[in-house]
Amino acid sequence: MNIGLDMMGGDFSPLEAVKGIQLYLREAGPATLWLIGDEGQIGPLLQEHRIPAASVRVVHADQIIDMNEHPTRALKEKPQSSIAIGFHLLASGKMDAFISAGNTGAMLVGALYSLKPIEGIHRPTISTVIPKENGGTGVLLDVGLNADCKPENLNQFAILGSLYASCILGIEEPRVGLLNIGEEEGKGNILAQAAYPLLAANPHIRFIGNIEGRDLLLDKADVMVCEGFTGNIILKLAESLFDISLRHRIESEYFDRFDFEYYGGTPLLGVTKPVIIGHGISRERSFLNMLRLAQKMLETDLLGKMRESFLS
Amino acid sequence: MNIGLDMMGGDFSPLEAVKGIQLYLREAGPATLWLIGDEGQIGPLLQEHRIPAASVRVVHADQIIDMNEHPTRALKEKPQSSIAIGFHLLASGKMDAFISAGNTGAMLVGALYSLKPIEGIHRPTISTVIPKENGGTGVLLDVGLNADCKPENLNQFAILGSLYASCILGIEEPRVGLLNIGEEEGKGNILAQAAYPLLAANPHIRFIGNIEGRDLLLDKADVMVCEGFTGNIILKLAESLFDISLRHRIESEYFDRFDFEYYGGTPLLGVTKPVIIGHGISRERSFLNMLRLAQKMLETDLLGKMRESFLS
Repeated sequence: MNIGLDMMGGDFSPLEAVKGIQLYLREAGPATLWLIGDEGQIGPLLQEHRIPAASVRVVHADQIIDMNEHPTRALKEKPQSSIAIGFHLLASGKMDAFISAGNTGAMLVGALYSLKPIEGIHRPTISTVIPKENGGTGVLLDVGLNADCKPENLNQFAILGSLYASCILGIEEPRVGLLNIGEEEGKGNILAQAAYPLLAANPHIRFIGNIEGRDLLLDKADVMVCEGFTGNIILKLAESLFDISLRHRIESEYFDRFDFEYYGGTPLLGVTKPVIIGHGISRERSFLNMLRLAQKMLETDLLGKMRESFLS
Repeated sequence: MNIGLDMMGGDFSPLEAVKGIQLYLREAGPATLWLIGDEGQIGPLLQEHRIPAASVRVVHADQIIDMNEHPTRALKEKPQSSIAIGFHLLASGKMDAFISAGNTGAMLVGALYSLKPIEGIHRPTISTVIPKENGGTGVLLDVGLNADCKPENLNQFAILGSLYASCILGIEEPRVGLLNIGEEEGKGNILAQAAYPLLAANPHIRFIGNIEGRDLLLDKADVMVCEGFTGNIILKLAESLFDISLRHRIESEYFDRFDFEYYGGTPLLGVTKPVIIGHGISRERSFLNMLRLAQKMLETDLLGKMRESFLS
């Protein structure tokens, strides 16, 4: 199992990435890690943190794509950047997964250009985990990649989210809810009205009907589907709740779970290889969790299961 | 000033409505209150709570529209219901405002059928106040009346919300933000992309650009505009935060402000008379606050200002 990691992406790289790698190896993570970035910076850090040379392969990258660069332009102008090299190694089959906490746009553009969507999938998607009040975890998608959607897109997100929930979150027969503004069929905006019958007729999922904003944090649906506009607003609002709970010194085990660093990163679902996009503010725990997530996606053959679902 | 109150609407009516009236009169609220409902139930409660007969006028209503009835059908089949009579008295000019914590759909349908939109307004809207982390208050609209919107609708909501923020919340030159998924112009879904230039060119408002989900609770924009789908999801998510903070015994002055009972009810903005729709779970404090809100809408001539804005 070969997992690639962009060592230059994120505000605290490469140091925090190296610390995450150390944690991963300490818990005997089985993957060989391909570390892509500036050898001059990475080498000494690996030594300092006593990373065994046998567990990693350093791939030198001359260039870095900054957080604020224009994604398409940056990828074109910087073929020697860690992100561009990462996707090259991923697409050519040398690596099995690729992780970066760098420029999100460049990661998305790189993935969509260098990898294909899984056959039958119209629109790859990004998701977030949602901490449920009862201690469980749900998944919400799309959270921003697809600002405008067609009904069939939501229907496909439901399949991708269900497989993610069962393989990664360990939820058996995950319940799928359509995020909507009203409980009964026929309620909602034009998109939700049209998506409902598709979801209800979808044999790959366990559709439980509409869920409302008040149900997002409750134990009602495990997989919650919506277009990326609403999903992104919810994600960023949820992230801000954690910041607020810190600033107001609200001591709550529940709101502690809104620390999205805990969940590592966001996988891009629907492309042929695992691609995980981390927060710019990722620290060691995030890098560790992204490595774990990539490993789990490979071990459970999540992508093979997605391929199968869309074949039939 | 004649303010009408549906005495039969809400889970705890008419008792909690009477208690709210008592609080309103105790603070010397100047309005004459028209109390619409079952005289047999209301009369004894008014006596018991020593409501002076000179401050109120009881209007008997034979019928009640239940919380779960189909709005249009119920209004048609129950012309003697408190909601139907309320709108009749409002439209005929006997009352200046109408409040109910009853069937929300019936209140909306009743208002839209019996009152006209203010000239020039395409789509009346409902809003919610949003407690800001810094202690301030913002207004978010639309929160569910208009699930699908055109760019010009958002532009009109911005004007209505700005006038509401200045007249009712006392915010001078309120900052208007377009809720979106990205900061720069050109980001977002098709609707937001098209709404941005309209808002930027609107001389009636102080547009500050896009705001994101993370900015909703921060002191960034006072008036936050979006279509009713996203707005409703946010509203119900925010309401659920208060319930969660209670259940988890989270002691926080900030989350206490997510008790939407505190704000009373939601005004329907864009029609020719003040109409306020309360939560089904309204108790005395909600009724008090809805009476105060109706009074303030009349005192500040909010609707006159809306009319003026849309004339020019």
